[in-house]
Amino acid sequence: MKLDRILIYGMGLMGGSLSLAIREKYPKAEISAVVRSKKSKTTILSKKLATHVFTLEENPKIEWDHFDLVVFSTPVASVLKLIPSLPKSGKTIYIDLGSTKQSIVDLVNIHFGDNEHNYISTHPMCGSEQTGPEAAVPSLYVDKLCILTKPKLASQTSFDFVKQFWETIGSWTIQMDAKVHDETLAYVSHLPHVISTILVNVAGKNHTTMDQVNSIPKPITGGGFRDMSRIAGSNAEMWVSIFKENKSFLIDSIDQFITQLTEFRNLFLEDVGLDESKMISIWESALKKKETIQKNK
Amino acid sequence: MKLDRILIYGMGLMGGSLSLAIREKYPKAEISAVVRSKKSKTTILSKKLATHVFTLEENPKIEWDHFDLVVFSTPVASVLKLIPSLPKSGKTIYIDLGSTKQSIVDLVNIHFGDNEHNYISTHPMCGSEQTGPEAAVPSLYVDKLCILTKPKLASQTSFDFVKQFWETIGSWTIQMDAKVHDETLAYVSHLPHVISTILVNVAGKNHTTMDQVNSIPKPITGGGFRDMSRIAGSNAEMWVSIFKENKSFLIDSIDQFITQLTEFRNLFLEDVGLDESKMISIWESALKKKETIQKNK
Repeated sequence: MKLDRILIYGMGLMGGSLSLAIREKYPKAEISAVVRSKKSKTTILSKKLATHVFTLEENPKIEWDHFDLVVFSTPVASVLKLIPSLPKSGKTIYIDLGSTKQSIVDLVNIHFGDNEHNYISTHPMCGSEQTGPEAAVPSLYVDKLCILTKPKLASQTSFDFVKQFWETIGSWTIQMDAKVHDETLAYVSHLPHVISTILVNVAGKNHTTMDQVNSIPKPITGGGFRDMSRIAGSNAEMWVSIFKENKSFLIDSIDQFITQLTEFRNLFLEDVGLDESKMISIWESALKKKETIQKNK
Repeated sequence: MKLDRILIYGMGLMGGSLSLAIREKYPKAEISAVVRSKKSKTTILSKKLATHVFTLEENPKIEWDHFDLVVFSTPVASVLKLIPSLPKSGKTIYIDLGSTKQSIVDLVNIHFGDNEHNYISTHPMCGSEQTGPEAAVPSLYVDKLCILTKPKLASQTSFDFVKQFWETIGSWTIQMDAKVHDETLAYVSHLPHVISTILVNVAGKNHTTMDQVNSIPKPITGGGFRDMSRIAGSNAEMWVSIFKENKSFLIDSIDQFITQLTEFRNLFLEDVGLDESKMISIWESALKKKETIQKNK
């Protein structure tokens, strides 16, 4: 399958980094980019992230068929607005980098109906607290997981092509059903972002803490807080979109978190004294599960 | 003030690293260590972390006066058991590396009564998910914050000496009242450790997530979860001790966390649709507070 002309729709950190990676791995491919703002256009051209860049104002009607591969690198809400405009036949392969899958796959199934098509939903797990094309780096996807979700009637050829594409870029891939993806991601990605953000707001609301913070020019926090707050508050628009799309699983995960945190808190309530063995078992369980989840052991 | 003989009581990661740092900065000082287990003794001798090492079994009665500086590098609960055995006069300077201050300072005040003394409570903020003397590194304290707490009747000379000591080791120091220390640390350290641990347990309890985790040899988590779980479940015994000592402020911080997380969760309940502007303001607040707390801007 040829890969001469690629369109990256939306070029922030993810799209820009993908562009740099494509340049390395597919040097003959011509990359075009669609962006919202003139500021992005200027950055992209000066960083040479794409050969052709146009804003939607300049080019409101995109000729999708012109490209071998179209990459939607925008929040899920925007992807959902674009899917209905795609042609129902043709050789162009479409992928998105969306952080949730169910709503995209549902809409793809509706849009293409009974037609075989070439839309594969993908999720490269390599976010960063940085944003914008100015932060783009060619190695963003290297040795990262890219989850592939195949809608019911997507062609096997397009699936194999997309899998090969991400592996050439340097990612490793697994296939997940849309629902399994969204539930899993609620726990390993969406909930952690909520927790990190709330943690910073809780610390930021405590007057004693903030008095100390403001009393000296250096940070009073150690590595624990630094790591726990790294992803806090970044990329609000993207996260609102993710939370809306994954509302049900996110609520489940938050409720689980509140339940377990409340159980922990209530270990301190006993007048008979703290149940240390229970507390230690919570700690040991976390250590063991962390090793399992992160494949450290 | 001379610093010829130093005793480090308890030699895990913190004590062992301090020993390596002392060797670099005070090469003439002779370092002795007290440890619990024979295994630690073997590690310490093979890593040359101390000149003399003895277990409590071998040497149950320590001659404190023999040393210029005694460093208690054990959980707070153990420090509290040692303070009553200290001589009420003499030139020896005592410090601990305890993660909470109020209970230590209260006991120091009671123990020394109306006598001027040389006990300064210190808290170098440089923990790690690693533990044990085998993980010791000489740079652990370099460019880290060390909080100094001066009990009421501690001599100014000893305070100045201890401040100078930590700055020579490479830390930067600030002085905090015990209560302010404990409240602040609840928010910037203790709560984050609880949150990280609960997060891993919540993810680890979700069957869909664990099925995916167990289906492939590589981790399915991205950098967000990795950072958010780094401090989870480590060093259970130390944390139980910290939580017991700082119970009241920890409970306050957990309650604040549950309140704010519940508020966030309830943004999804409205049948009229999600209040996006409220969600974005939570995100923007976190971003701003993170920059303030971490002194990024």
